[in-house]
Amino acid sequence: MSVLVVGSVALDSVETPFGKADDVLGGSATFFSASASHLTQVSVVGVVGNDYPVAQLDQLKKRGVDFSGLEQADGPSFRWRGRYSHDLNSAETLETHLGVFSHFSPKIPEKLRSSPYVFLANIDPRLQLDVLEQVKDPKLVACDTMNFWIQSRRPELLKLLERVDLVTLNDGEARQLTEKSNLVQAAQWILSRGPKHVLIKKGEHGAFMFTRDSVFFAPAFPLESVFDPTGAGDSFAGGFIGYIAKTGDLSEANMRRAVVHGSVMGSFAVEKFSIERLMTVTKAEIDQRVKQLRRLVTFEEELPA
Amino acid sequence: MSVLVVGSVALDSVETPFGKADDVLGGSATFFSASASHLTQVSVVGVVGNDYPVAQLDQLKKRGVDFSGLEQADGPSFRWRGRYSHDLNSAETLETHLGVFSHFSPKIPEKLRSSPYVFLANIDPRLQLDVLEQVKDPKLVACDTMNFWIQSRRPELLKLLERVDLVTLNDGEARQLTEKSNLVQAAQWILSRGPKHVLIKKGEHGAFMFTRDSVFFAPAFPLESVFDPTGAGDSFAGGFIGYIAKTGDLSEANMRRAVVHGSVMGSFAVEKFSIERLMTVTKAEIDQRVKQLRRLVTFEEELPA
Repeated sequence: MSVLVVGSVALDSVETPFGKADDVLGGSATFFSASASHLTQVSVVGVVGNDYPVAQLDQLKKRGVDFSGLEQADGPSFRWRGRYSHDLNSAETLETHLGVFSHFSPKIPEKLRSSPYVFLANIDPRLQLDVLEQVKDPKLVACDTMNFWIQSRRPELLKLLERVDLVTLNDGEARQLTEKSNLVQAAQWILSRGPKHVLIKKGEHGAFMFTRDSVFFAPAFPLESVFDPTGAGDSFAGGFIGYIAKTGDLSEANMRRAVVHGSVMGSFAVEKFSIERLMTVTKAEIDQRVKQLRRLVTFEEELPA
Repeated sequence: MSVLVVGSVALDSVETPFGKADDVLGGSATFFSASASHLTQVSVVGVVGNDYPVAQLDQLKKRGVDFSGLEQADGPSFRWRGRYSHDLNSAETLETHLGVFSHFSPKIPEKLRSSPYVFLANIDPRLQLDVLEQVKDPKLVACDTMNFWIQSRRPELLKLLERVDLVTLNDGEARQLTEKSNLVQAAQWILSRGPKHVLIKKGEHGAFMFTRDSVFFAPAFPLESVFDPTGAGDSFAGGFIGYIAKTGDLSEANMRRAVVHGSVMGSFAVEKFSIERLMTVTKAEIDQRVKQLRRLVTFEEELPA
């Protein structure tokens, strides 16, 4: 079944110890859809400026991504410039120009309002709530957020938590939101506000999925070289939600497989700049990495008889 | 089969956001033996001063730990004072007094020289090499180390690597030793120097075990509250080596179970000050946490038929 993602479609300029890329495809909805397109059909709602190289989105359209909900507005596109130092752990933001994104007001096209799976990528919680007013009875709504909104839009974010099924956020954001340094306690706090699932992403240290009565952990795939971490979290979300949408199965066992697909898609995203690697990865490569991730954590409790 | 550990037996004074403890049992050999004693018989070689509350070691002796190799020397015992801030991630060392430990020269009693399993805890690599001259044909020798020795005793440490089967160290130490920020590359570098296994501990983020042709990952057990992280790494090593010694099985499958036992014993160690929790934990509690850790990471690749 199909996924609707509402988020940013941007241009990134990135410096890492291994190279430099200017004005390449970026933004949460871009990484999310590039990743999820390997698993299911995705529709993007977002906005770009009249300077956006829309022809470059053709590679995503060829993968079945629907951009009928992408507005083109008068003004410059959302641009982000960042730099990673040697350990690649965190980006230093050098410039952020919101451009037309600062006036973004998501309008969900009629035919997308019945999307069964909805991912509210990292945008103003007021807009995330606004999207919820427009969609009709989705099977699952997931949202992401970031430190900026946790600080500046806390009441709206808490309201949003009451209305989503699933939250994805990173460990720092979970701690900031809940004011709890312990992640188990932070997850419980979030679950008590409404969501049935909380996915806490820890970057190279893997991800936890918490429900009220279970916890699952998937490591990050141990890569011999990480090229550019930009978009890893959104690619994770794309693999995760994409797998749920593909299978339509919200059982615990299937959600665990979904987390693993998130981890695997995130691991491909960081192997090249922008969505480059996500555009070439094959189903066989994805399946192989899922198998490798399973071998990575598998042990038997007792000696075989 | 039995394990010989050579390391520090100290007195720790610790402040955490949850409390304060003064002059409690600490040191690498103490945590290691408290942990390993749940799995196998352990003998300690170390040194304490004439001020050491040796009667407090009775709780370990009752658990079968052999202190016949513990010297008592004239002078003050090794004392460490540290403080953890709210996130508990790293200790701030307030005071270190090596005392009699600064002149420690391990003498392995004759009856312990044939110990099949040997753990060289974090001491001067010159002393670790010296212990290797004294032991006779062990089945497995493992060593730990720390930033101080990596910096000040690099040639001796590299010589040691050629002579041990297994190295345990934390991620920061692995990066410092190998000058590689990527852990997969760091592990390969270490393996190329001699050891067949490298265990890279990442604290709350779990641990990797690398061999030349495999990699295994065990998460840290997700605790709702961590009380005092002191000794977690040595308790991990005690659970790991203790399990190997108990089973006498160096197969990949069994080494994986050993890593999991390390993770589980580390998780108990941090629930109270000093070795308190390790003194009360039961076999049933250990086995249950092993099962829980397995559930934490288990997923099936495909939908069950």
